[in-house]
Formats: sequence, C-alpha cells, structure tokens
Amino acid sequence: MRIRLLSGRELDIMAEENLLQALKRQGVYLVASCGGKGICGKCRVRIAEGACRTVSTGKLDHQQIAAGAVLACQTFPEENLVLDIPKESRLVVGDVIETARAKDLFELFQNLDGSISPLVQWIPLQVPLPTLEGNISDIERLTNVAEKQGLHGLTFPHSVISSSADLLRETGGKISLGYTGTGEVFSLSSLSRKERFGVAVDVGTTTIVVYLVDLSDGRIVDVGSTYNSQMRHGDDVITRIVYATESNGLQELRDAVVDDINTLLMPLAEKHSISIDDIESAVIAGNTTMAHLFWGLNPAYIREEPYTPTLNIFPLWRAGTANLALHSQAPVYTVPCVASYVGGDIVAGVLASRMHRQGELSLFMDIGTNGEIVIGNNEWLVTAACSAGPCFEGSGIKQGMRATEGAVESVKIDRRTLEPVLGIIGKAKPLGICGSGMIDAVSELFLCGLIDQKGRFVNGSKTERIREGFEGTEFLFYQDSQRQIVLTEIDIENILRAKAAIYAGISLLLKETGFSFNEIEHVYIAGGFGNYLNVERAIMIGMLPDLPGEKFRFIGNTAIAGAYLCLLSENMRNEAGAIARKMTNIELSVSRLFMDEYLSALFLPHTDISQFPTVTALLDNK
Amino acid sequence: MRIRLLSGRELDIMAEENLLQALKRQGVYLVASCGGKGICGKCRVRIAEGACRTVSTGKLDHQQIAAGAVLACQTFPEENLVLDIPKESRLVVGDVIETARAKDLFELFQNLDGSISPLVQWIPLQVPLPTLEGNISDIERLTNVAEKQGLHGLTFPHSVISSSADLLRETGGKISLGYTGTGEVFSLSSLSRKERFGVAVDVGTTTIVVYLVDLSDGRIVDVGSTYNSQMRHGDDVITRIVYATESNGLQELRDAVVDDINTLLMPLAEKHSISIDDIESAVIAGNTTMAHLFWGLNPAYIREEPYTPTLNIFPLWRAGTANLALHSQAPVYTVPCVASYVGGDIVAGVLASRMHRQGELSLFMDIGTNGEIVIGNNEWLVTAACSAGPCFEGSGIKQGMRATEGAVESVKIDRRTLEPVLGIIGKAKPLGICGSGMIDAVSELFLCGLIDQKGRFVNGSKTERIREGFEGTEFLFYQDSQRQIVLTEIDIENILRAKAAIYAGISLLLKETGFSFNEIEHVYIAGGFGNYLNVERAIMIGMLPDLPGEKFRFIGNTAIAGAYLCLLSENMRNEAGAIARKMTNIELSVSRLFMDEYLSALFLPHTDISQFPTVTALLDNK
Repeated sequence: MRIRLLSGRELDIMAEENLLQALKRQGVYLVASCGGKGICGKCRVRIAEGACRTVSTGKLDHQQIAAGAVLACQTFPEENLVLDIPKESRLVVGDVIETARAKDLFELFQNLDGSISPLVQWIPLQVPLPTLEGNISDIERLTNVAEKQGLHGLTFPHSVISSSADLLRETGGKISLGYTGTGEVFSLSSLSRKERFGVAVDVGTTTIVVYLVDLSDGRIVDVGSTYNSQMRHGDDVITRIVYATESNGLQELRDAVVDDINTLLMPLAEKHSISIDDIESAVIAGNTTMAHLFWGLNPAYIREEPYTPTLNIFPLWRAGTANLALHSQAPVYTVPCVASYVGGDIVAGVLASRMHRQGELSLFMDIGTNGEIVIGNNEWLVTAACSAGPCFEGSGIKQGMRATEGAVESVKIDRRTLEPVLGIIGKAKPLGICGSGMIDAVSELFLCGLIDQKGRFVNGSKTERIREGFEGTEFLFYQDSQRQIVLTEIDIENILRAKAAIYAGISLLLKETGFSFNEIEHVYIAGGFGNYLNVERAIMIGMLPDLPGEKFRFIGNTAIAGAYLCLLSENMRNEAGAIARKMTNIELSVSRLFMDEYLSALFLPHTDISQFPTVTALLDNK
Repeated sequence: MRIRLLSGRELDIMAEENLLQALKRQGVYLVASCGGKGICGKCRVRIAEGACRTVSTGKLDHQQIAAGAVLACQTFPEENLVLDIPKESRLVVGDVIETARAKDLFELFQNLDGSISPLVQWIPLQVPLPTLEGNISDIERLTNVAEKQGLHGLTFPHSVISSSADLLRETGGKISLGYTGTGEVFSLSSLSRKERFGVAVDVGTTTIVVYLVDLSDGRIVDVGSTYNSQMRHGDDVITRIVYATESNGLQELRDAVVDDINTLLMPLAEKHSISIDDIESAVIAGNTTMAHLFWGLNPAYIREEPYTPTLNIFPLWRAGTANLALHSQAPVYTVPCVASYVGGDIVAGVLASRMHRQGELSLFMDIGTNGEIVIGNNEWLVTAACSAGPCFEGSGIKQGMRATEGAVESVKIDRRTLEPVLGIIGKAKPLGICGSGMIDAVSELFLCGLIDQKGRFVNGSKTERIREGFEGTEFLFYQDSQRQIVLTEIDIENILRAKAAIYAGISLLLKETGFSFNEIEHVYIAGGFGNYLNVERAIMIGMLPDLPGEKFRFIGNTAIAGAYLCLLSENMRNEAGAIARKMTNIELSVSRLFMDEYLSALFLPHTDISQFPTVTALLDNK
C-alpha cells in the first residue's frame, strides 16, 4: 500500500508497519516523545483520504478525532492513504540551533590555560638514512632519534609502520612525528605539512553540536548543529535505553549519532577546503547514556538500580574504529562521566564554568532533557541528577514544544482583564509552549490568583479562559481556526514536579554539605534553556532559590565549551579528569531526605514560604 | 578456450593468460622457481593435443621439445588443449613435511625455562557487585580490584568493555581476567573456563609449519605443515620481493601466507574439538622478508642496498587485525629479526640451540632456502647471510628437487666400474636430485677423479656416463623410458658456489672475531636439509669445516622449536629479544675479505687444502 503526503510525495508502507514506522523508514520524522507507544500524543497526523485501523487514540480529544486526527504510531492503513502532517508533529532535523558564542570561547580558553596542547602533538625529527654500516630497520632508526629527543616508549600502529619506509626515503629523513600522550604514534608526515584541525562535539540527548577547530591557533573555523536523530526513538534517555535493549537497537542508536556527527562535519570540512585526513583529533562530551551509545555499549544497567554505567572514564578511541569521518588514527577523547545520570556534559560544564577553581561556593545547573546540579568550590564538588524530566523541553506537556519558531516563550496576564499577552519565538503564529513560556504561565496564573499554591485552578475565577477540556480543567491561552493553546491542570502538575525536583536537589546537596542557600556566591545556569529563562519568574514558582539577580549567570551550552577546551589543551583534559574523580554523586532517587524536600517543593513557591522573601513581598503587595 | 588435464579435469583459460597463470588461477600449482619468467625450466608440461604459441623454450632440450614439452609460463594456447603435467612439475601442496620432533620439544623447554607464562596471563578476580553506595562504573570497580592484586595500568579494548557489564552480573563478579605483558586486557571470562591454546608458526620461504599447543601444560596437541603457497610466485625471497612491488602483489602474498596458516589451523582445531576462540595467542617465526609479507609491509628496501627492513622488532599484533583464525584479540608475537637477511627464524634457532647460554664457542647454521650462520657464545653473537641460494632445495639445478618422495638423496659411485648406486627417498623411481644427493654426487665424482678441483669433468674418464648434453658436459646417474637424471657441469658449478658461500661465511665470521675453526666446540645444523645431510661428504666437498664428527649436531627445524618456546614463556621471549639485540650482522655482499674467502672456497675442497686434513688423508689414500 502507499501513502501520499499533501506535498505530493509518495511513500510505501509494508504489512505490519504503522504510519510512524513507515514514515521514519523513508526519512520523514515525527515527534515521538514516548518512542511510538501511543502515550505522548505528539505524532498526530490527519487522514485526508482512505481507511485505516487505529489501535488507540491516546491523548487525542473528540474534536481532533472528529477532524480526522490519529496517532501515527497507532495507525495501520487498510487502503492507500492521503496524509496531512501538521507542522507541530514534524521533527525538524537540520535546523540551526543556538550554540555558545564561539568568539567568546577562545578568550575563556586563554583565561583558563592559554597554551595549546591537543591530543596529537608533533615533533620534527631528522632520521638518518640507512647505510651499509648502519642498516638497522627504519622504525628502529626513527625510534632512536625520538629517544634522543626524550620521547620514550613510542608505539607504532600498522598504518604508520607500513608507510614509514617510503616516507623516510622521499623526505630524506626530515619528518614530523605526531604522537598522543600515551606514546602511540599518530602519523608521520613531511615537515611541510602544517594544517591541523580538530573537532569538539556535544552529543546531547536532543541536539548535537560540532565545532571544527584550527588546532594551530584555537580558532573555531565553523559550527554545525542538528537534532540528535536518535530522537526518532524517543525524547529522553530512558526511552533510548529501552530501545537499545531491543534487537538491533543499540547498533541503530550508535549509527544514528555517528551519522549525525559525520553529516555535520563533512560539509563543514568541504566548505573550508579541509581534508578529512587533516582533522586529527576529536572530543566528545555527552551524558553517560549518550557516551555509552556513542561507544556502542549496552546502557541497560544505567537504568536499573543501583544505576551503574559500564564506563565513566573512557579510554582514547580511534576515529577509524569509531567510524568518525576524521583521520582514521585520530584519537577520540570522551569527556569522563561521574555516574549514570551525571555525565561528561556536566564535567565539561563545570570545567567551562571555572567553579572548580574558585574558593567561593558555586551552584551549577544544567536544565536540559534532565536536570543536573553541582555545588562546590576548588576543594570539593557534589552533584546530583534531579529527574526533572524533559518537561521544559515540551515532553509530557499537552502542547509543550522545544524553544523553536512558534513556541510561546513568554506570557503576561493582565491583572484586571485576565487576558494573556504572548511572546512567540520568531514572531510567528503560536504552535505550542516551551519551557520559559511554561514558567511564565504558571507564575502569572499564580500571581493573578487563578491557581492556588498546589497549582489547582481556583473555582469561580472571573475569566472564561478557564474551562473544562478533554483532559480536565485548562486555561486557554490562544486560539485560531486551526489550533488552541492551553495549559491543563495536569500540565501544571508536571511543571510543579519538575521545578520541585530541581529545587529539592539543590536543597538536599546544601544540607548534605552543611551549607545554606545564602552562602551560594555564584549560580551558573547552563543549557539552551537558560537563554530564554526569566530568573525572577523561575524564583517566583520556586524553581530557583531566592537569591539576588546578580548572582545568576547564564553560560550557554557549556558541554560544547568544555569539549572545545579539552580539544585544545592537555591541562584542560587533566582538569576534566580531576573534576570527574573529585565529584561525589548523590543518588537522589533512593534518598528519603530528598523525598521530603521534594514534597515541600511541590507548592508554589514552596511549603516553607520563608525561603522566598521576594515572592512573599510580591504576594503581600498584590 | 579450455584445457583438459589427463585426469579429465577441465579448466578454462583467458585471453593473454599463459598456461602457468591459468592453472594457478584454478588451483593447479606447478613448480616455478623463477616465478614464471621462463628461466628455471621447472614448469615443464606436455601438450598432448592442440596447437599453442610458445614464446621461449628456455632450458628444455631437443628431446623434450620433440616429445611435446613446453614451459607452461611461456605458452599460450591457440585452441583447446589436452595437457600432461609430469609429476616432477607439480607443486604438491598439503604434503606432510618433516617437522621437529614434537615430543622432544617440551623437554627442551623444561631444560631452558620450565615455567609456563604465555602471552596472555590469567588472574582470578572477585569484583564487588555495585550497590547504591558504591555504584561507580563496572570497569572502574574491576580496575580497582585488579590494582589491589598488583595489576596497574590495565587498558581495555572495546570488545572487553562492551561485554563486561553482562559478564560481571552473570558471574556475580567472579571472573578471570586475561591480560598481556603490556597490560592490555585480552578477555574476561567466567572462572570455570579453563581451556587455553596457542599456536606456534614457522613461516618458511618454502614451508609453513603450525604447532597447536595446550598452554596449560605445554603439550603439543597437533602439528600441521604445508608448502608456502607464495611459492606460486617464485622460490626465493628475492622473487617474492619483486612480486610484492607489483600492483596487488603485496596483498596477494600476505593473503597467501595467512590463508596457509588458517587452512592448517582450522582443521586441527576442529579435529580436537577446540574452539577458535580458545586459541588465545600466536607466535610467528620467519625470515625478515616472510615477516614483512606476513605483516603486509612492502619489503622492497630489503633488496636494495643498504638492505634495510622496515621493522626488526615487531609490536604485538592482534589476531583479528592480522586475519588469523584465532580469538580476535589474541596477541600475535613475531620473533624479532636482526637484519634484512637474518630473520626471526635464526633468532628462534639460536634460542632453541641454546648456544647463547654456553661459554664455549658455537657455530649455528641454517641451510634452507638461503644459508644463515651464527657464531658466538653467552657473551656475543655474530651473524651473516651467505647468499648460498636455494640450490640445495633444487633451484638452479637442472634436475634439482626438494627432499621429497622420488629424490635421489644419496649417491655412491663404484671406484672400479664407475657405476652409481642411488638412494631414493620413498624407495620410488627417481624423479630428481635433492641437496644431500647433490653433495654426495659431487663428493663421489671428485673422489673417483671424474671431476677436478674446479668441478670440471676430467677428460678421458673411463665411463660413458660422462657425455655432452643439451647444456654441456654432464654425468648420467639414471635413465628409464621416461626420464634421465644427470648432473651437468653447470649444476656442479652452482653447487660449488653454494658450498663456497657457506664455508667462506663461516671463515669470515671467525676471522672478524679472531677465532679459528678448531676453537668451535659445537656445530648446530638446523633446517630440514640437515635431516638428510651426510657430514663427512659435506666436509669432503669443503662445505662444512673439517671438525670431528662428534662436534656436529642436527637440531631439525629450530624456527618452529624457537617459536614454540616463545609461545610458552615470557623468559623465552625476553631471551629472543636479547638475542636479536645482541647479534651483530655482517653484510657479506659488500665485504672484500668475504669475496677473497669465497674465491678460495670455490675449489674442491678448498684452495688451502691444509684446512681439510681429513680430506687430504682420504685423497692420499686413494
């Protein structure tokens, strides 16, 4: 049978295949937060023509169903179909995603270290040509000269050995020898070769960012980013772990991320006339699950108590073995992880934040697909993963979406008319609501007295925007002929859970280490989310601690920043290793104290209102 | 066009292909000492039916040509042919070749070392299972336990990392860890796994010998041997080196030797119900060219002055990378080489001879395809390659052949009737003459006064067996209706050249080190050749020094013996390394002194007859 899209494109569909699978197989990706289990309700499509069998309608409401909407993952055609895929159901791969400001990074590097020492270092050698009196082997003569320069214990891969004889004779023995810190020879080249590049990669659960870097001066040549195409198999790490344990799932996920990196890297190299063979090292920063999937390691035990990864400290890998489109001998450094839910992205983030060098107490938070926090200083570091879930990226929220074009990113509600004013990314028609929009919305609903401390809609409010919907009580923010944007009571409950997890995590780490909120001197907020976050509103709902605004600093995508630092410098790699070893992970999921903190934080802003003097003042002034 | 063999088998032949190439492509191998250049005259076949074009008839005589003989490498069919391949032209692959006596080897090992320490060592570990309080990664817990047992700096290949999580949980953490001397982890296994095997390989220019060894007790489980199928491309290392520089030659030669090893190994493993995955290490001993070809390294510079190999000391390789049919992570140790023409076979031989441990002066000689000699003791070792050439293996001798069934291995000539009595290997009809037969023949012809000191036939000898043949004067040893076996004056000249090279080499090494022949206490004769060699006759022609018989010892195939020792023991590998480093190579090809010695040794037995008192006495008594 066949499927025709409204664009006119024709696809086929095989027996036993649902629409989601058939579309995916042919390169049409839909949002599928739950991985195709009929739960999230995001893969909504409209059957324009044709009959089909639908197993479940999931979260679709009567109106949608009446309009011909089905969940692609639950639908099997019974004849040829014509399919309408609404914009919000499409997973847009290839969008340019906001990345850290490349030009600021080299300054950061210079402040932190300054001397460039990449994974491959080069030394010029003059290897004597053989004579009848000195005809020991080529590699022995080379090794002898290297030892005179203080390079001991060099090991040679086969590719280097096999090319050495000709190269030594063509160059008259004047060569450059590239080697890694472990003494493995990377390559031999003629002295004239000067171009040296590296690539820093942030493998996020949601997005992949690649920096192509000139290793001679640290300059960022170009930047590329894309959605992680593992997303077809679910939004969060748990869904991916489950998928990895299915038949060929692990290999598929590994191939997906490697393809993404290569697909970003190769056009960048071509654009700048850089040979793939001149890209001689890579640094990968990702959370522990992403690192395992990149390495092709079964992540199953990450998910099972007691949450144990296979590896935290990864050996150097070779690009050829890793299938990356670099020089095949290029060393691939994986930023070390700390625990199952505190990965190399956080270690890279701490490195880029510099909190590990400061005497004062800092709080580092990365609220992305999960929510990780670190507190500490130059003596100690404590970390925890908050299980905030990907709610602020749109998952689990009826009309939630990522902070891309069409997302409601800010909300104001007129205190008198109770009418909302929406800020939309890209000034387009609103398609859904993103993390900062959710925080704004909850904060405004609360300040207007439309929801109570528990996030429940207050009876008898003087607005018709509060109404009974398909999933219970909801607030209508927007409607036009095509769509309505609402926040349901269930959505608000999910947002409160997420913010409570973050606040309780911070609170617990402070209690465990004997500090109070006021002793925190710096709050570093990392992650793409930070770019849109309104700190005052986040304090208002009790997600961030009630500290003076000047203590907060948005530091962007620190995973890529840390990866860039590690790409350039051995000192930075050593510091990353020291951070990972020093960091103590606290397993919140089994902490009774955390559960207490969490329950207290489920209120707006908090059960213990004294922790939020600013909010108290605002509520009093209302 | 098609070729039919007398056996009835039908082969095809492509345009531009000569008969030798067509036969080879379809698995019918002929002797082709010169590599198919029309020079050696060994690939003789008879055209029974059909017309063909012959470029050159090479060494074929009128009689042979009249009988329909052509050189396969010089012949192109013009229509379908029926082909008769005489037995002596066939390269018999798969014959069982004489190998060192396996049962004696373990005794040798016990005398030399006694403690088994293969390339992979195993240690039992109890790795604690993770808990919520101790959930560091699997590999970190494993590394911590190993470090407590004194194993530091372990490195883990990807395959081990990826299987560790499940294995640790299945075994409750009770595992065995296998690792190599460099700290690279080979494999993890459950404690119950006990079977451990290794393979020692002698990669000779002519033959390949494989020992399958039980690494738990040193027992040789089974032995296999075959001709090196690189032989299709020529008999000696020089022809192979030339072939290696042609388009895909290097890869073909490498594939040939690897296929040979695997083809021997796999049926042995199957016969003894041994899993390939339980074969966990390999040792390869071969001359420098064979080692380069096994490693896939271009051997071109071995052949060009100043005769420089790419590698003498080889790193550990992995069986998976080397394409050997062992556990893919199995370390492959290559016995180190000394110089372009003194390889790992000689280092292995010295190791097995034990001369490097003795105070007295010893002479080691391996007369195989080439002729290498070593003199020295427990303090020093000096070596040289004699360029004797493969004459004693039959190459360059009109009816020369290897010491296999049908070879004339001994010759007596009746002093009165001048009629020869021949000893034939396998008591079969004679097909040709092998090395020991040649030495006997020359010795007898000389003692009977039929040839002079220069190896020239003496005019007026009272026998009709001396006659003028197609290639000059010759002595007829045998004839029947099918063939005649002769030794020509050119053959004798070649034999004298070979024996002179060997004797001059020994003489030069002694002069360079300031010793005399009489100071040699032990003469170790290695190589398959030694098994048939008559020492007295070899002294008679001036090939071996005139020393008392009790000083000579035949020690068989010491390349495989040394490989076996290295397979079993780290001490032996260390000794092999020390031997290779200690051994000083003297490049005879550019030594004027050697040339003088060589010219003096071209006589029977020698220009300086005083060096051969036994021979002098015999000649006087005649």
